[in-house]
Amino acid sequence: MVKLNKDTREEYCNHLLQLLTKEELDQFREDFLQLHPTDQADFYIMLESEDRQKLYAIITAETMADIFQALELSEQKELIIELDERYAAEMINHLYADDAATFLAELDQVEAQAILTAMNTDDADDVKELMAYPPKTAGSIMTKEFISLSSTNTAQEVIEQLRMEAPNAETIYYLYVVDEHEQLVGVVSLRDLITAQSNELVENLMSTRVVSVGSSANQEDVAKLIKKYDFLAAPVVSPNGVLLGIVTVDDVIDVIEDEATEDLGEFTASRGATDVNVSAFTAAKKRAPWIVLLMFFGLITAGVIDQFEETLSQIVLLAAFIPLLMGSAGNAGTQSLAVVVRGLALGTLEKKGLARTLLREFSTGMMIGIICALALLIIIPIFYGSFMLAVIVGISIFCSLSVATVIGATVPLIINKLKIDPAFASGPFITTVNDILGLLIYFTIATSLLEFL
Amino acid sequence: MVKLNKDTREEYCNHLLQLLTKEELDQFREDFLQLHPTDQADFYIMLESEDRQKLYAIITAETMADIFQALELSEQKELIIELDERYAAEMINHLYADDAATFLAELDQVEAQAILTAMNTDDADDVKELMAYPPKTAGSIMTKEFISLSSTNTAQEVIEQLRMEAPNAETIYYLYVVDEHEQLVGVVSLRDLITAQSNELVENLMSTRVVSVGSSANQEDVAKLIKKYDFLAAPVVSPNGVLLGIVTVDDVIDVIEDEATEDLGEFTASRGATDVNVSAFTAAKKRAPWIVLLMFFGLITAGVIDQFEETLSQIVLLAAFIPLLMGSAGNAGTQSLAVVVRGLALGTLEKKGLARTLLREFSTGMMIGIICALALLIIIPIFYGSFMLAVIVGISIFCSLSVATVIGATVPLIINKLKIDPAFASGPFITTVNDILGLLIYFTIATSLLEFL
Repeated sequence: MVKLNKDTREEYCNHLLQLLTKEELDQFREDFLQLHPTDQADFYIMLESEDRQKLYAIITAETMADIFQALELSEQKELIIELDERYAAEMINHLYADDAATFLAELDQVEAQAILTAMNTDDADDVKELMAYPPKTAGSIMTKEFISLSSTNTAQEVIEQLRMEAPNAETIYYLYVVDEHEQLVGVVSLRDLITAQSNELVENLMSTRVVSVGSSANQEDVAKLIKKYDFLAAPVVSPNGVLLGIVTVDDVIDVIEDEATEDLGEFTASRGATDVNVSAFTAAKKRAPWIVLLMFFGLITAGVIDQFEETLSQIVLLAAFIPLLMGSAGNAGTQSLAVVVRGLALGTLEKKGLARTLLREFSTGMMIGIICALALLIIIPIFYGSFMLAVIVGISIFCSLSVATVIGATVPLIINKLKIDPAFASGPFITTVNDILGLLIYFTIATSLLEFL
Repeated sequence: MVKLNKDTREEYCNHLLQLLTKEELDQFREDFLQLHPTDQADFYIMLESEDRQKLYAIITAETMADIFQALELSEQKELIIELDERYAAEMINHLYADDAATFLAELDQVEAQAILTAMNTDDADDVKELMAYPPKTAGSIMTKEFISLSSTNTAQEVIEQLRMEAPNAETIYYLYVVDEHEQLVGVVSLRDLITAQSNELVENLMSTRVVSVGSSANQEDVAKLIKKYDFLAAPVVSPNGVLLGIVTVDDVIDVIEDEATEDLGEFTASRGATDVNVSAFTAAKKRAPWIVLLMFFGLITAGVIDQFEETLSQIVLLAAFIPLLMGSAGNAGTQSLAVVVRGLALGTLEKKGLARTLLREFSTGMMIGIICALALLIIIPIFYGSFMLAVIVGISIFCSLSVATVIGATVPLIINKLKIDPAFASGPFITTVNDILGLLIYFTIATSLLEFL
């Protein structure tokens, strides 16, 4: 199988393209099939529609299924439209059930139903089963193509079984042992099997207490489990212990990437909008609601400042430090938020008590606040000639930073406990709360010290 | 092997603790050794110092090495201090070379050297080799415990070889084929080996064009490669093709987690400060520099506002909309930043042209800007009774949002091209730039329209 390093990729792709253009289709097929499906997919998406049609004519639906699985969702949708219906259904038959389910879930119901009807009954049933699980659960990302054994087989018998079943299984490195009711009773790795005597019974090789997850478990918890134990796969079971499927480590990598994207989205008010390959209009439609919503919060801030118009009109210079104060409080709050959110994601927070974490954040905020206040007490008199202004801004920054770190740390903890949609803990929301508190602190102090200015 | 689900964990740990307290050490050892090393480590960190000493006395250095590998770095450091020197050295001998190198790199040179001297020469050489690679390269995260084959062996011979070598290898699922010069010439999966005829030569089973990475490749590129092809491992080679080691998928998961933490750190001015298990003082020491640095940028903003003191003193209400404008521009810029940074991280951006991405962002910014401007043109006259004020704020928000998205998208692209430390692209820096531009736009418009207010 040809796998391409960066430098050989372009050359090989040009070579393939030439063969296709010159209609040397036999040679093309031979060389194309040498590629890893991931590289086949990379080549495929470069092709013009006309060349794609040539491709469909000369490669089997099974090969096309491998390519399909390596494509992005938007590319998959384009592909399916170009195929004739029979070829498409045959291709979907060859997909792993989890990939087929993920794809069909994105189509409208009529289209999905049409494809399901054209599929083999068995395969279609697997796909329907997976589609029935709520998104982001273990059930929704598991694969049905796993290998299960009986505990009374010998190592040699299992290896014979593998020779038969390996081509259809997503992994053969973890083998799950089930009893007569299909309930999961053990696991044996191919590693253990290889190193065992050939007449050894699976019973004696398997681990009997298997870590498994329920089909409704959160996909993030499955990812944490696999990461924690360095597993290559984890079994998914029904409430009564029946083995339903497995989640493999490559699915988990996708989950971790997705969760990281989601975390970032929540920190940047771009939740659900981080897809780079959309039109400006689609991007605006996804992002505008956040900006507009946060702008309305900005109107609240404007209202707060408006309340102190009298103070401001007496000392206009106070306005100059609004961005500095709000920016600092916002940054400190977001830092705390990031620390706590990462701690929750990586599971390192649980080892510490929550109260200690909050106290730590409060102390941290006070220390940073003192440093900032001292700096301002020196700088402001130099540039603006007013020591009293420095005192007002200094005390305000100390108070706002101390509060901001606590709010930044508390909100995600509460939200985590309450299992509310974590979007509400997003950076911009915490920043807004800190903005308003900071402004109240600032102008209250300024108003009460006004006579000294 | 006992692996613990959440509900059985506490019970089993209590049981172990009781045995340890009652000094029923034989029974304790037997039950403790039933646990997966990851769970052994979880149990270990719960123990008081006195109980830990009991543990060291009854388990071998080899078992302790497995526990050690499952601990966090800070816990590893605590552990090594408690051990007597000979036991510690023996334990380090049993670590995988990559884990030993990662740990020793964190100690000071004298300590690290003392441990290296006490180790077996062969193991110490492997560890020293890994420590010589720069951090975050493929070389620094690869493992030396891989299995290499000769192409002239038969499938059966390889399986015999695996029986011998499997216990010392980190994975046996990918087997690398080298020639007489130790140069990588192919790869064969255990899957292919199992399904092959037993007298088939490795030569005929292996893929000859293997995707490999250089030892100085960025760890993130290795992660992308493994993720793209759904590999379980990738081989690391020297410039002349000699197989040096392998990077396994579980290491890659750690890399992806680390990179996500890093991305988040760059977005939240908490770079390198996301460790939750540190004292308030340490946290303040790591985070304060960012807050103070950004506060100095805030002083620039204050200076900009100060320049427009005359305008402000005529219409104090203008100050009320400073946070709204700056917040909106900041949010829009951060959204663009997030989209582009994720696109770069996931590799989805490369498919689009960069110019098209920038144009897309600019159009998106204008569209969101129009929506915000229209909303303000309705709301501000109602609450503040001034249509002219609404026009000033409306035009300003339209201009700032259009500019902010372009800046948010451009900066990470430039930084990516120049291969500069991406910390400079962090959210708060872009927000500061957008703040200043937004204020200039706002007050320039306000000043020029002052006579109409």
